[in-house]
Amino acid sequence: MKLTILGCYAATPRTFTNPTAQVLEINNHLFLIDCGEGTQVELRRNKVKFSKIKHIFISHLHGDHFYGLVGLISTFRLLNRESELHVYGPKGIKEIITLQLKLSNSWTNYPLYFHELTEKEPQLIFEDAKVTVETIPLNHRVYTNGFIFREKPGLRKLLINEAQNYGIDVALYQSVKMGKDVISNEGELIPNYLVTAPPDPPKSYAFCSDTAYSPAIVPQIKNVTVLYHESTFLEEHKHLAAPTKHSTAIEAATLAKEANVGTLILGHYSTRYSDIELFRKEANTIFQKVELADDGRNFTFK
Amino acid sequence: MKLTILGCYAATPRTFTNPTAQVLEINNHLFLIDCGEGTQVELRRNKVKFSKIKHIFISHLHGDHFYGLVGLISTFRLLNRESELHVYGPKGIKEIITLQLKLSNSWTNYPLYFHELTEKEPQLIFEDAKVTVETIPLNHRVYTNGFIFREKPGLRKLLINEAQNYGIDVALYQSVKMGKDVISNEGELIPNYLVTAPPDPPKSYAFCSDTAYSPAIVPQIKNVTVLYHESTFLEEHKHLAAPTKHSTAIEAATLAKEANVGTLILGHYSTRYSDIELFRKEANTIFQKVELADDGRNFTFK
Repeated sequence: MKLTILGCYAATPRTFTNPTAQVLEINNHLFLIDCGEGTQVELRRNKVKFSKIKHIFISHLHGDHFYGLVGLISTFRLLNRESELHVYGPKGIKEIITLQLKLSNSWTNYPLYFHELTEKEPQLIFEDAKVTVETIPLNHRVYTNGFIFREKPGLRKLLINEAQNYGIDVALYQSVKMGKDVISNEGELIPNYLVTAPPDPPKSYAFCSDTAYSPAIVPQIKNVTVLYHESTFLEEHKHLAAPTKHSTAIEAATLAKEANVGTLILGHYSTRYSDIELFRKEANTIFQKVELADDGRNFTFK
Repeated sequence: MKLTILGCYAATPRTFTNPTAQVLEINNHLFLIDCGEGTQVELRRNKVKFSKIKHIFISHLHGDHFYGLVGLISTFRLLNRESELHVYGPKGIKEIITLQLKLSNSWTNYPLYFHELTEKEPQLIFEDAKVTVETIPLNHRVYTNGFIFREKPGLRKLLINEAQNYGIDVALYQSVKMGKDVISNEGELIPNYLVTAPPDPPKSYAFCSDTAYSPAIVPQIKNVTVLYHESTFLEEHKHLAAPTKHSTAIEAATLAKEANVGTLILGHYSTRYSDIELFRKEANTIFQKVELADDGRNFTFK
């Protein structure tokens, strides 16, 4: 599971800071999460292959989270994309994009599907053999969802030496990995646990931005491998967090602790701060495993 | 008259090239012309003061000419702009912008006026004491206008020594500059030409992008000080110009020659070319005074 931060600063794009966008690589999927203005340039800068992006998740309709979407969709068209693109986001996103494509007489030449969200409860919005994606209803000034990406449990790991010792035919290895007991070449029933080890625990990634401090989400994000949680403000400006429905680093860390997450990644910093290390310092007073998002930074979780 | 090129490349924004946007400084106005994705960042990079932009002219509704507009309008709001903003562009632009502001619950806190264009004939769209702006109907795949910015003739220049010699009261200087004959302190009628020189010839700037080769515009752009004309293609790809309704460098130069313009600036280069000097080389076979737009380049016309 690999996360690439394309942009992680609040409000307006600036010369050296980009608004929210990130790419999650999980089980051969490349999911784009949010798409602020300039995201297509940051994708190029980070050498993300455009054609591998098939699903885009938009948290909410504030500009710093989606103004780059229409440009990316248009660029896909200019690059002669043929494969499907699925966009998940709040109701209204389809009208915004299609209106612009209509007025520029530039319909996509690839299938473009919108999955508009209106639910206020968590909702399964994507599922295939290996991954699920659910919404995390957040508390912001407009209708907003976070997203939780979960690997499904993988196959058990074949212990190849044991399997050979017990005389298991190669043709049965897939059944063994699926947890089945099998009959050896000598006609013996071999219990599965003798020739396999448990699969790696499935990894999960929760993206929560933008949101006020919301303890209600703890049960849903419990034990996730990685939590990205916005921390727009430091303690000195915590009086600004509630009215703008944003969070502080301390609040993000408190949720991370309550939810017992593996790693907390902070981001969506107000551009008033010049030293983002202060966010880590404050969060560390509550929770130890804190990483700082920054534009162009990669995180790999094994 | 000063022109700052924020972006001058066709199609998609890339790591080191920006889509169309430029700032024209003329008689204390700061006009923004087109606003591709990322324009607000380029304005910052070029140290253009946001609050001085009061008029934005959008040529057409292809993304590389206006996808940065909604972000700029939103950023003005975040910066607590108070002064009016006027946007001139094709019909539909108001719906595109207001839909997005509505869905993000982010109406501007400053007066925002849209002047939607539908005319197919040249039209005066702005006028004050010193400057006029007219549309130049262009021939592109969607409804498109160029714009011509003209200084009005200035006041005559007072020859201060002559005025003193002829005994003209200081209170009459403004009348003298306006071309009037006045009475001297000795009661004599002083003909204006004795104490003034003609004003500088008014400058003018024509912006023509995007467009197929259109000789029909020659009468309107005749004798302009500066013509910016798109040149998407070189001769080797001229077969692409007509179907996409773009122009070649040779075509742009041919118009410049026919219209007897002072300087031709080329831009809107296809990103397939790595050496833009080739555009100048080809244009120079027809017309001598050719400049190349490039991102971040400034031109001052005295």
